[in-house]
Amino acid sequence: MERIDGRNKDEKRIINIIKDYIKYPDGSVLIETGNTKVVCTACIEDKVPPFLKGTGEGWITSEYGMLPGSTQSRKPRESSKGKVDGRTMEIQRLIGRALRSVVDLKLLGERTIWIDCDVIQADGGTRTASITGSFVALACAMEKLSKIVEFESYPIREFVAAISVGIVEDEPLLDLCYEEDSNAMVDMNIIMTQSGQLVEVQGTGEQRPFTREEMDELINLGQKGIMELIELQKEVLGESASKIGSSKQ
Amino acid sequence: MERIDGRNKDEKRIINIIKDYIKYPDGSVLIETGNTKVVCTACIEDKVPPFLKGTGEGWITSEYGMLPGSTQSRKPRESSKGKVDGRTMEIQRLIGRALRSVVDLKLLGERTIWIDCDVIQADGGTRTASITGSFVALACAMEKLSKIVEFESYPIREFVAAISVGIVEDEPLLDLCYEEDSNAMVDMNIIMTQSGQLVEVQGTGEQRPFTREEMDELINLGQKGIMELIELQKEVLGESASKIGSSKQ
Amino acid sequence: MERIDGRNKDEKRIINIIKDYIKYPDGSVLIETGNTKVVCTACIEDKVPPFLKGTGEGWITSEYGMLPGSTQSRKPRESSKGKVDGRTMEIQRLIGRALRSVVDLKLLGERTIWIDCDVIQADGGTRTASITGSFVALACAMEKLSKIVEFESYPIREFVAAISVGIVEDEPLLDLCYEEDSNAMVDMNIIMTQSGQLVEVQGTGEQRPFTREEMDELINLGQKGIMELIELQKEVLGESASKIGSSKQ
Amino acid sequence: MERIDGRNKDEKRIINIIKDYIKYPDGSVLIETGNTKVVCTACIEDKVPPFLKGTGEGWITSEYGMLPGSTQSRKPRESSKGKVDGRTMEIQRLIGRALRSVVDLKLLGERTIWIDCDVIQADGGTRTASITGSFVALACAMEKLSKIVEFESYPIREFVAAISVGIVEDEPLLDLCYEEDSNAMVDMNIIMTQSGQLVEVQGTGEQRPFTREEMDELINLGQKGIMELIELQKEVLGESASKIGSSKQ
Amino acid sequence: MERIDGRNKDEKRIINIIKDYIKYPDGSVLIETGNTKVVCTACIEDKVPPFLKGTGEGWITSEYGMLPGSTQSRKPRESSKGKVDGRTMEIQRLIGRALRSVVDLKLLGERTIWIDCDVIQADGGTRTASITGSFVALACAMEKLSKIVEFESYPIREFVAAISVGIVEDEPLLDLCYEEDSNAMVDMNIIMTQSGQLVEVQGTGEQRPFTREEMDELINLGQKGIMELIELQKEVLGESASKIGSSKQ
Amino acid sequence: MERIDGRNKDEKRIINIIKDYIKYPDGSVLIETGNTKVVCTACIEDKVPPFLKGTGEGWITSEYGMLPGSTQSRKPRESSKGKVDGRTMEIQRLIGRALRSVVDLKLLGERTIWIDCDVIQADGGTRTASITGSFVALACAMEKLSKIVEFESYPIREFVAAISVGIVEDEPLLDLCYEEDSNAMVDMNIIMTQSGQLVEVQGTGEQRPFTREEMDELINLGQKGIMELIELQKEVLGESASKIGSSKQ
Repeated sequence: MERIDGRNKDEKRIINIIKDYIKYPDGSVLIETGNTKVVCTACIEDKVPPFLKGTGEGWITSEYGMLPGSTQSRKPRESSKGKVDGRTMEIQRLIGRALRSVVDLKLLGERTIWIDCDVIQADGGTRTASITGSFVALACAMEKLSKIVEFESYPIREFVAAISVGIVEDEPLLDLCYEEDSNAMVDMNIIMTQSGQLVEVQGTGEQRPFTREEMDELINLGQKGIMELIELQKEVLGESASKIGSSKQ
Repeated sequence: MERIDGRNKDEKRIINIIKDYIKYPDGSVLIETGNTKVVCTACIEDKVPPFLKGTGEGWITSEYGMLPGSTQSRKPRESSKGKVDGRTMEIQRLIGRALRSVVDLKLLGERTIWIDCDVIQADGGTRTASITGSFVALACAMEKLSKIVEFESYPIREFVAAISVGIVEDEPLLDLCYEEDSNAMVDMNIIMTQSGQLVEVQGTGEQRPFTREEMDELINLGQKGIMELIELQKEVLGESASKIGSSKQ
Repeated sequence: MERIDGRNKDEKRIINIIKDYIKYPDGSVLIETGNTKVVCTACIEDKVPPFLKGTGEGWITSEYGMLPGSTQSRKPRESSKGKVDGRTMEIQRLIGRALRSVVDLKLLGERTIWIDCDVIQADGGTRTASITGSFVALACAMEKLSKIVEFESYPIREFVAAISVGIVEDEPLLDLCYEEDSNAMVDMNIIMTQSGQLVEVQGTGEQRPFTREEMDELINLGQKGIMELIELQKEVLGESASKIGSSKQ
Repeated sequence: MERIDGRNKDEKRIINIIKDYIKYPDGSVLIETGNTKVVCTACIEDKVPPFLKGTGEGWITSEYGMLPGSTQSRKPRESSKGKVDGRTMEIQRLIGRALRSVVDLKLLGERTIWIDCDVIQADGGTRTASITGSFVALACAMEKLSKIVEFESYPIREFVAAISVGIVEDEPLLDLCYEEDSNAMVDMNIIMTQSGQLVEVQGTGEQRPFTREEMDELINLGQKGIMELIELQKEVLGESASKIGSSKQ
Repeated sequence: MERIDGRNKDEKRIINIIKDYIKYPDGSVLIETGNTKVVCTACIEDKVPPFLKGTGEGWITSEYGMLPGSTQSRKPRESSKGKVDGRTMEIQRLIGRALRSVVDLKLLGERTIWIDCDVIQADGGTRTASITGSFVALACAMEKLSKIVEFESYPIREFVAAISVGIVEDEPLLDLCYEEDSNAMVDMNIIMTQSGQLVEVQGTGEQRPFTREEMDELINLGQKGIMELIELQKEVLGESASKIGSSKQ
Repeated sequence: MERIDGRNKDEKRIINIIKDYIKYPDGSVLIETGNTKVVCTACIEDKVPPFLKGTGEGWITSEYGMLPGSTQSRKPRESSKGKVDGRTMEIQRLIGRALRSVVDLKLLGERTIWIDCDVIQADGGTRTASITGSFVALACAMEKLSKIVEFESYPIREFVAAISVGIVEDEPLLDLCYEEDSNAMVDMNIIMTQSGQLVEVQGTGEQRPFTREEMDELINLGQKGIMELIELQKEVLGESASKIGSSKQ
């Protein structure tokens, strides 16, 4: 089997992360992975949701959207329909969990970081690109915050990134594009930290169930891709990358 | 570590499935697993959603709800709030995917099977109990349908069941109750077929990430539990259980 | 005319009230009247709606729902439609009024009692069963509360119960089942206290208007049924029944 | 006890019905009863709701609203809140039932009559004024329709009107104004036809339950008021009043 | 070209403003311009929206609605549809801006004036009639308020009124009725103060663009009409008219 | 007065229009004017809204949104709030009207062109940039459509563009940035065709009314700016620009 864009099975798409893409948010990037393009922003607010008031802890929450023109046929606007669909909610919750898993919310203090991921163009892997990109936006915002607020120690514990893997025509592949994703027998999203630990695994048998051996192979592929993504995140963040994890025992 | 209810680490809670619990739906069960109680119903409708019209294929869709009194503190009614929250949507989509994975929708023909799972009492594991229970409701509805419609071959390919596993105080445990779940470091839901293949794996590092070894251990535990659940499903379904998978090559 | 289930004209269906049906709420019952089954719960909250803040008075509010599988053809879920329909609202308001009519809200103090009635199976008379059942749930919650809070005198003044009556084929009948209700010329819901006083009468000429003589006959039937229901409520409540009305001058 | 506006206990307020108040609807009136003012319109549409399609029967449906400035303190607009409250729904359903009870929907044919009642100024009794007024609007629309369509016989079988009664300071009173209504111990709405038969009785013990003797007295008062209202309806309708009930056996 | 109702090109329709049309609001009028009838009310509330709290400034906000029977074919109720449409929002914002432009919100102090405009009958020009009428309602409310509160100087700086103009069959016309409006090539709403200054101009080429010369001609027509409207406002307000603008330097 | 960014009073910001910015829609641009950035897309659908079915005419409709991170402080997402606010609706309607004014909808045939304008970064003038940009997206889509469908003559009659003008500190200025707009005494949006005719004028006295002389001056400024914008549109469209207006008599 040859991949539609000629990549090797364990080869991710060309990825580009442009920092400071929008001028108002505390952190912002445009992440492009193949034809998928997502704007990720991080805005800091000096208050927390009611369930955290008075606890001294902070929060990270995420929202996700797709521009109507981002998909192959125009996607009706959720604001016009008056409600957010199930897929959007699932992705929003996933992004929030992923980022919270590497931040010490006690060190953050009573602040909320709002993460917004808006898909400009969609060619598969928008949720994993959103996580990978918004980690960088979050890191920029934290860097900025750390210049105003004196943290006891740096609140970001580790790098985190995400990628999709899947089985297409019985072949495990890394970083599916839309066409591959549409035909995938098995579809899996993996979120992993720099130390190779899993933050989230979501594997779904779309056309057929999968064996445990296949699962292992998929995670191997994902791990390879994620380590490469984290290298890129470091490069983009430059000097401020070194603070991340610095306070970890 | 001793479990709160004295169970072994690889021991699931006492499970009970009462068939034909409500008289109007085509299939219905009350599933009780420990203190968790869920009513699952299956109703057949002779039409399909727009995207399937004219394709000859059927559909299985699922909705999930919790009675306000089912939780430790009263849960506000989603109909009163006027919207379904993200967690509910995620669960609804999960149940639908799980059941569709073992049914041949072409054999079903242009019909929709509506699965409703309503939690009467919640003590952890409501989404996995919903899947295990609604498979039985689905099987009853299919049995009933098969007496009216002549299927080319039986549309249910395999048994499917689901269970939760997790890591609590660094110990991998099977079938978490609410209190265990609230303190879990890692939380995983596993959906598996009778043949031991995975339909869905969703693992989340709630308090910390997890290693691949831990992941393997959790899946081992889950597989043990699911095989026991499928035995129970067979028993409850009695004679009609034998048709399931009968048409598989 | 013979009734569809062979009952006498002034005979109510077999009724069963199971106390403590769910473990978390302060009071809960399953009430079964014929094939109608309703879960009624009472949850106490230590605050009141804005219009009562600072008045020292409490409140009792009610919500009502039907499981999708409870009706002959699947009833679409109100949470999915995003709004509560007119019939539901009418019933919710009715239940709340009925229960408030026998409770001294000043004695209750600044607390809200949330009553939830969820229909598991519907065969006519769900609103009256909800009232009869939720009175018992309320009484259990009050009993529980009275062990924590010292009431000046007991806040429940009287027993209250409800039943439906109607005219079918020109015959006045007690406690209509669904099929009778669908064909009723006149439909009436009666809520009455133990002392035989009316709390609410709602009579509707569905197929034709009705005379005042017919109205009297219907209320006679209802009164007979309600007195029997109150006997059952007392039995189910056991010892704690004796407190109700104890503080009445 | 003297009434706030000096009326006798069995005396209704001054009532005025202005026909053809708005020019576009098929029928329209302004009804003023004391300080309560309601615009009632009837619009005929040549189709029916889905559940009646192909049955040959028609439908009458009703909507009710209050102008924000109609009440003592400004009432927030339901369109701005994005939902219709329970009281509004209850009233809408009541008006629709009342009018349908005196119309032969088979004779009407597959048409919907939309009744809209909009309260310009509210001083108690808006729901009963809406019914009394919209019967006249309906009759005007039917008269107009009867000039285009040849009815087998005239679809309106009887006059219908409505009035409120209540017990204030233990005195039964006819046609409560807002201040009386606010202090009523018992509140009852009665809808009755010209022949003295009941279409709907809704009695509520607001501050205390009520005896059957009190109920009888209230209905007597209501009947007196309704007969006077029907006289006024006839007068306002003039010649076309004679057709109503003409086809009754 | 002769106008449908025989008016001259620069002749507005017959206008009538009835003050104190509803008894509860602080100010209220019924404005009739030709067949267009709008109830305008002004209610004063002793608080301001969050963005003004603590600033010492007041606010004027406006809502607009149409009765279902006000239009040629019944207009579905926005409260039933659960949302306010774009045209309504545009009009609401326009009325609010127009009135705020002639009131000194600092002098008003931390109060909100709620303006409600409800169209009873619509024959074109409802938004401009709403502005002209609600200015009078506002002036009545301010007069009333000035008897309770001692203003440093009178908060209303100037009279303001509005009228529509348009080009029909290439002829510029003043004060379009519905039929003219439906066929207008160009449609313009003009809001102007007594001193002949523009508060708002909204011109739209409906069927074709328009030249600057045409624009000038339309504004001339509008100015003529508005000056006549302001004369009428003064007459209706009587003595209290003299306070308006009295404190202007 | 010196402008904040050093421009002359009649000088517009630097403008850049990037064609084919997104790959799926039939037409798409990124328009940047100063710091304002808007993605405009045009998608053709082969059906029309109900009110046009069977007329042979087409439709152009528009939606507008702002990314949460596009504004100085994060703008809550309209899809999360579940409704579109009044400002958004006003802008959507404006864009649609502007584009329809230069397209012959009969020549377009029964097709809808969906225009989406999504603001990536907002620094004033987003609605006028949306119109100027989406005209180019529309022209691209029409060009593409003209290769599939044989038009009787080319449906776009003229170029159209839009710009904001305003009075700041009593000085009329062209193309206000956000800071100027916030302090504007008068604010005006002008939409004009290539032939110098007005499609829409919306002038608002924000802090004070304005004279007719000021209005003329503002329109002069706007006309200068729009002619420059149309030159840029032509340049960006290249060869296909020549078709526009080619079929005009």
